[in-house]
Amino acid sequence: MHIAAWYEGNQRVGFGAGKPVDPGPDEVQIAVSYCGVCGTDLHIFHGHMDHRVALPQVIGHEMSGTVAAVGAAVTAWKSGDRVTVRPLDHCGNCPACRNGHSHICMNLKFIGIDRPGAMQSLWTVPAHTLHRLPAALGFEQGALIEPLAVACHDVRLAGLKPGEYAVVQGGGPIGMLVALVARQAGARVLLTEVNPFRIALARELGFEAASPLDTDVVKLVEAATEGAGADVVFEVAGAPAAAAMMTKLVRVRGRVVIVAVYPKPVEVDLFKLFWREITMIGTRVYEYEDFEQAIALAESGALPLHRVITRILPLHQLADAFHDMERGGEALKILMQCQES
Amino acid sequence: MHIAAWYEGNQRVGFGAGKPVDPGPDEVQIAVSYCGVCGTDLHIFHGHMDHRVALPQVIGHEMSGTVAAVGAAVTAWKSGDRVTVRPLDHCGNCPACRNGHSHICMNLKFIGIDRPGAMQSLWTVPAHTLHRLPAALGFEQGALIEPLAVACHDVRLAGLKPGEYAVVQGGGPIGMLVALVARQAGARVLLTEVNPFRIALARELGFEAASPLDTDVVKLVEAATEGAGADVVFEVAGAPAAAAMMTKLVRVRGRVVIVAVYPKPVEVDLFKLFWREITMIGTRVYEYEDFEQAIALAESGALPLHRVITRILPLHQLADAFHDMERGGEALKILMQCQES
Repeated sequence: MHIAAWYEGNQRVGFGAGKPVDPGPDEVQIAVSYCGVCGTDLHIFHGHMDHRVALPQVIGHEMSGTVAAVGAAVTAWKSGDRVTVRPLDHCGNCPACRNGHSHICMNLKFIGIDRPGAMQSLWTVPAHTLHRLPAALGFEQGALIEPLAVACHDVRLAGLKPGEYAVVQGGGPIGMLVALVARQAGARVLLTEVNPFRIALARELGFEAASPLDTDVVKLVEAATEGAGADVVFEVAGAPAAAAMMTKLVRVRGRVVIVAVYPKPVEVDLFKLFWREITMIGTRVYEYEDFEQAIALAESGALPLHRVITRILPLHQLADAFHDMERGGEALKILMQCQES
Repeated sequence: MHIAAWYEGNQRVGFGAGKPVDPGPDEVQIAVSYCGVCGTDLHIFHGHMDHRVALPQVIGHEMSGTVAAVGAAVTAWKSGDRVTVRPLDHCGNCPACRNGHSHICMNLKFIGIDRPGAMQSLWTVPAHTLHRLPAALGFEQGALIEPLAVACHDVRLAGLKPGEYAVVQGGGPIGMLVALVARQAGARVLLTEVNPFRIALARELGFEAASPLDTDVVKLVEAATEGAGADVVFEVAGAPAAAAMMTKLVRVRGRVVIVAVYPKPVEVDLFKLFWREITMIGTRVYEYEDFEQAIALAESGALPLHRVITRILPLHQLADAFHDMERGGEALKILMQCQES
């Protein structure tokens, strides 16, 4: 039986027998193994994206699975291929697409928000969104490729170089992955976070980690950099206090990378930006190469990705996953199992 | 007789016979021709920089003049050389200096703020600060090299390319010079400004110019760029409304260059920065090459620099210059004549 979980509006989710969609000529139908629950899914659950979703909406976009059927025009993929999906569908005609920035197409359809998502046992998507999962990579870790690609994109756009000192503000799933990718790129990494569970996890993973609630982070960074400041600050926390802190930590001509989603304008110290000639770089989603890098990194085994997954739940317990995330506490990445067991 | 004008604190300026300083071994004494009055000088006059100035403080740093005497160790300069000064004195030992960013040295002494300035008939400065003025360049325009170098620095750090569309927010002296340098670099330029005199001047200089008070600047920019948005926005206005506008005008992967000095944190739309992967670049003062480019541009005659100078006053009328600038209206760049006439 086909199963699916969907958002019904008003902080309600549904679960039941969905209706699988046959693949069109350029589409592929995937038997989904796992789908991670993203902060964006929680935003949908809270009703913050009701203007974009069509109820009832199957959500989810961080997945792994196996090709189950292919459309008539698809030649690159066949049943049984192990895959993940880069859930971006661009228009091809807007100024961003024409200039090579189709990943942030001005008419971008994000699959799992603007189109049905992966929290179902059979999911049909355009074939151009697929990336191959290596045989050595398990489906659990395969479901982390999408957020890992976000981290690869952020580190790439930061222009991070070996030996540089990076601060990651915020130790949620994306922050933790940014820290891992930054360290893999040769940077020294400090992670700042207020949640004690996440601080402890970061330390177990070998990072220096501190809470701005009990530590003078500016002094800590200055001491670690001979007074210069950090080469790069990744702002992944998304809180006004973090926006106030980010410009205090970075060196002359350093970079601040904005990863977090700030729903409304926030105070930024443009004087400090001016004074130290800081560059602030907005980053969003990922490009093809970031997915390929994420897959290669995951396959290499260099990153302790399994530590980022804190819970795996059957698909009918999606509401429990959201409540776990709302409580914060010990939740990091929660995966939903999308096949009936 | 040596004459000088100085800031006495409490919005008072003094004028009289100053005491010329003999050049030390590595210093040069300059007979100052003209000194432009900068917005920074007005800030000093208003008491906003009392923590940096030592009263009574001779101010001014946008100057032209002729070498009058050289110190014992100076071989590159001789009496009679026509010069301007890059008024930056760096420490050479801080992380910024060590990394090649001595122009924004972490212990930078800005000559004319932290040290005595150019509003005197004889001014003594370190020899390393001098740039040669070509014979063809008049002393009036020579006094514009310093602000023109700011504009060259801003345009260079923007990475502005021929054919790009640039918006300059703010049509004061720096904004007008940024517009001129950006156009010279091959950009199409829109200048936004609220002062009718400055809008009219910008139009006389051949720029498209508009007031955000009566024009939908977002629509204007979209219409001019096939809906894409500006490649670069130079934020030179320094007002919260301008900070709110800057992110609305720029294209996917475009750049916002922060030139204005924001004395305190201001609301910035980090969501837009994220959504369009905008880069925001802080820029401050100039480097050696920017001064050389400014001199070459001025010498070429390609820029109508004389139109930026709205008034020339004898040095004893410095208070009048400040009051002109406070009124706004028809003042752009005011030069002080620093020799007795």
